[in-house]
Amino acid sequence: MIAKYVPILNWGRRYSRDRFGRDLTAAVIVTIMLIPQSLAYALLAGLPPEVGLYASILPLLGYAIFGSSTSLAVGPVAVVSLMTAAAVGRIAAEGTADYASAAIVLALLSGGILALMGLFRLGFVANFLSHPVIAGFITASGLIIATSQLGGLLGIQTHGHAMPELVASIVEHLGQINLYTLAVGMASLAVLAWVRLDMKKRLSSWGVPSGIATFLVRAAPAVVVLAAIAASAVFDLGGKGVALVGQVPQGIPLLSIPNVSLDLITVLIGPAFIISIVGFVESISVAQTLAAKKRERIDPDQELVGLGAANIFSGLGSGYPVTGGFARSVVNHDAGAATPAAGIFTAIGIAVATLLLTPFLALLPKATLAATIVVAVLALVDFSILKKTFTYSKADFTAVATTLFVTLIFGVEMGISLGVAASILIFLYRTSKPHTAVVGRVPGTEHFRNVLRHDVETRPEIISLRVDESLYFANARFLEDVILEKVTANPDTRHVILVCPAVNTIDMSALESLEAINERLKDMGIVFHLTEVKGPVMDRLKRSDFFAHLTGQVFLSQHEAIDTLSKMRSDSRPDTPISTSS
Amino acid sequence: MIAKYVPILNWGRRYSRDRFGRDLTAAVIVTIMLIPQSLAYALLAGLPPEVGLYASILPLLGYAIFGSSTSLAVGPVAVVSLMTAAAVGRIAAEGTADYASAAIVLALLSGGILALMGLFRLGFVANFLSHPVIAGFITASGLIIATSQLGGLLGIQTHGHAMPELVASIVEHLGQINLYTLAVGMASLAVLAWVRLDMKKRLSSWGVPSGIATFLVRAAPAVVVLAAIAASAVFDLGGKGVALVGQVPQGIPLLSIPNVSLDLITVLIGPAFIISIVGFVESISVAQTLAAKKRERIDPDQELVGLGAANIFSGLGSGYPVTGGFARSVVNHDAGAATPAAGIFTAIGIAVATLLLTPFLALLPKATLAATIVVAVLALVDFSILKKTFTYSKADFTAVATTLFVTLIFGVEMGISLGVAASILIFLYRTSKPHTAVVGRVPGTEHFRNVLRHDVETRPEIISLRVDESLYFANARFLEDVILEKVTANPDTRHVILVCPAVNTIDMSALESLEAINERLKDMGIVFHLTEVKGPVMDRLKRSDFFAHLTGQVFLSQHEAIDTLSKMRSDSRPDTPISTSS
Repeated sequence: MIAKYVPILNWGRRYSRDRFGRDLTAAVIVTIMLIPQSLAYALLAGLPPEVGLYASILPLLGYAIFGSSTSLAVGPVAVVSLMTAAAVGRIAAEGTADYASAAIVLALLSGGILALMGLFRLGFVANFLSHPVIAGFITASGLIIATSQLGGLLGIQTHGHAMPELVASIVEHLGQINLYTLAVGMASLAVLAWVRLDMKKRLSSWGVPSGIATFLVRAAPAVVVLAAIAASAVFDLGGKGVALVGQVPQGIPLLSIPNVSLDLITVLIGPAFIISIVGFVESISVAQTLAAKKRERIDPDQELVGLGAANIFSGLGSGYPVTGGFARSVVNHDAGAATPAAGIFTAIGIAVATLLLTPFLALLPKATLAATIVVAVLALVDFSILKKTFTYSKADFTAVATTLFVTLIFGVEMGISLGVAASILIFLYRTSKPHTAVVGRVPGTEHFRNVLRHDVETRPEIISLRVDESLYFANARFLEDVILEKVTANPDTRHVILVCPAVNTIDMSALESLEAINERLKDMGIVFHLTEVKGPVMDRLKRSDFFAHLTGQVFLSQHEAIDTLSKMRSDSRPDTPISTSS
Repeated sequence: MIAKYVPILNWGRRYSRDRFGRDLTAAVIVTIMLIPQSLAYALLAGLPPEVGLYASILPLLGYAIFGSSTSLAVGPVAVVSLMTAAAVGRIAAEGTADYASAAIVLALLSGGILALMGLFRLGFVANFLSHPVIAGFITASGLIIATSQLGGLLGIQTHGHAMPELVASIVEHLGQINLYTLAVGMASLAVLAWVRLDMKKRLSSWGVPSGIATFLVRAAPAVVVLAAIAASAVFDLGGKGVALVGQVPQGIPLLSIPNVSLDLITVLIGPAFIISIVGFVESISVAQTLAAKKRERIDPDQELVGLGAANIFSGLGSGYPVTGGFARSVVNHDAGAATPAAGIFTAIGIAVATLLLTPFLALLPKATLAATIVVAVLALVDFSILKKTFTYSKADFTAVATTLFVTLIFGVEMGISLGVAASILIFLYRTSKPHTAVVGRVPGTEHFRNVLRHDVETRPEIISLRVDESLYFANARFLEDVILEKVTANPDTRHVILVCPAVNTIDMSALESLEAINERLKDMGIVFHLTEVKGPVMDRLKRSDFFAHLTGQVFLSQHEAIDTLSKMRSDSRPDTPISTSS
């Protein structure tokens, strides 16, 4: 029973030597890749670089115990780091003890929220973040992050977590550019960009085997960091005004208890919730994609528990909010990771590196880390979603554009909140005016089609209206309106038939609208019928007293309805010829 | 063209002597009914009673010019009066000039909002107020109003616009009950309750013709007011501590310009929006019900313009927010009103009554007006919606209960806002886990049914999954999850077919999920097909590059799909027998 919630008890029992070998290989590669990223993303979050390393040790253990993906590699990621900076920056100044402490509290809150959502199986909440909203948000975040790193590349101070403030602060301090910093920054940027865009192809053309080439590409950023440290020492860059990481505390904090106040929790709980949802959505899609490649399945609620544990462990180890990273998870998967044990070995690797690295970190120019970030996040920026949604659906385009624009101008929290609100309102608006069609019989068949699109038979005394949407509060009044409009436009009407094959639910509002329609039609001497009502919808209607008042009948098929009603009418008065609309 | 927006230009041209007679009769009856209501509702809104009369003159002219219902009678109503008190009470104390001025600004803002919504055809916004939310809100408002009038009936001070504060203030002042006030209040209450519940039956049993009996019942509240004034004069009730209406300014203010500040607008715009929507929803359902009885149609957007004009006119005439009232509109309709001119005649009637009445109003005990309100609003209180929704749908029950509870405890604005939020979230939650069914062929037919409910044929290598809901962001990930679950549970799977007859839309999120499903199935060596895709959905999919990547086909019917895929398979390897599930 407990194994259901603690996956390590399952895979741990079946662990084998072969799996150990694969996990260890993957861990070595991920460790080398994760070190420069951890340092850089901590800087982006406004935290000392070593905090990035802390956030890459314990969280990996937490996820390995409780997570369900065999490929996911958790740790600091770009977007969550930006969101952390935006949330924590509101209550303390960067570099203060309060700032670091608030980041820890944010990780603990986020972990608690994720774990509770998992235990209560509330993973569906993440569904309210539509793909267009996420795409717009990630692109805007990438742009903001890249802009925020310009300061580091140029050696000037910047502030703000949205475009207007960032750009203004860059322009304002443009006169203070440090040329040595600029040189280090541009050199790092050039090398890293070349590594990402061209190095593998070049190595292949030199005859380097593909496996080795891939490994070298992944190790290159770490080599750039080491080279920058060496250059810093040789040329005394610190003495020339280049900002360095500076003295870093030795050792790894394994258990920290931050100062928590109710005020702090009140301020951070909202951002923690948003960070949790965004982190979860990013992580689950990577995990599901990689799981499918192994024909495995990810349980979203268990993933919530896994990520929750990772964040709680991050907080306990002086880290900050983490989630599953896209690039490093793909690397982990490609390198052959077979179980979450790969994460445990990576954590050990980072811990060892932390102990060995800290003496040298003091000399690392911040501009090199800024270059690492810029190269990583530019991959996030993708405007094609604007074009794609513009062609596919104006509603989705509006949601993307709103999210993108608001995030750039007003920041991450406002952007994601308004994006979600916009996509919900757009959806409600769309379903509030559902597609409806008056239908008639295709001559000689039992099929009924839209009178506007097909050559079909109708009868002047019968209006058959098909509604292509579930009936619920947002379109209940619309339905009343459409039916009254059709009826007042056709004074011969004696029967109105609502054709319901696409009606998946009828909520209380729609039920009352149907009752109102029935009453109003009765006042006009018109009988109201339903056809092709689905089983579950019918079951529910039977629980109300709707059928006690319904003036007409419920027919299984539209064909049966027209058959019966045509006969009824011919009994009561002379028949009129069937009219054919085109 | 202009006549489209000014309906009076249409019906005015066809006005006739017969219509004049009917409209005049209706106007006389409505006027007699409206006078005590106007006085009482103004008191409920925290305004001097004469303001209720002002709000029953110009607004009726405004609606007669721009409104589209031939039966609707506008003016002060109970729920909007309570909402006005709640909104204005936050920024000024009752009885001050600022309070009266803010009520006027509220009417102008509300009128402006309604008119703009009508011109921009935004009537659909009212759809977000679901029937259960309205029902819960009206019942809670009725209870709050009745409780708030206890003070008037007992002769004690009360304050607050939600239950906890109201009840506390009543309990606190219980020792200050004035026995004369109590006597007047209870006497008025008893007579009015008898009038409403028993008078008509009694008159009929005495042989009074039905028409006269109905008229007498409707005139009775006005008679009670006159009797209370007489009693007040004869017994010097004012001298005995009974609260009287007091000196009232003579004349009718025909054009007032209130003090408007940007601050005031900022505070009132939110409440004005909520009042507009609630008033519109109340009014449009009355108008539509009565229109259907005459086989007429109401244009919701024109109704917005009509109600907007009524409120702007109300503000200009020193009134406060108004809307169409249920009881008086039914009376207007029953009395034979043929055109909106009935409203013009009612306005003239109220104006005349105002000029004649004001000298006597000073003597009217407030307890009589409180009794009028209590009798009127108890008709609003209806707990049956709780039982009805509980049987029909737990989701709707949750929305009613939330609205009712929050309105009672935290007041009208919070109640309606949380009610709307709850009904939207509940709807999204419900559609986020749509009904799905694996389907198989009913032997010997072309019909496909749920394998769990019917004896149908399936093939081990084909999973046919029917989804009974539109695919959009809230259920996109759910779909990915369901399909991966089915596939990992059935290792023989070679084909997955998504059966889409109930899919009315596929938004961008769902499209990307379908692409992800397609890719993941491809990684597993499984082909992905669609069947029975609706025309509009297909048109939209063709605008994307989905079909360029789809590994399988789109079949017109599920039958065709199974036919084709079964043959494909038997070509490639030896056939296995068809299995029959029960």
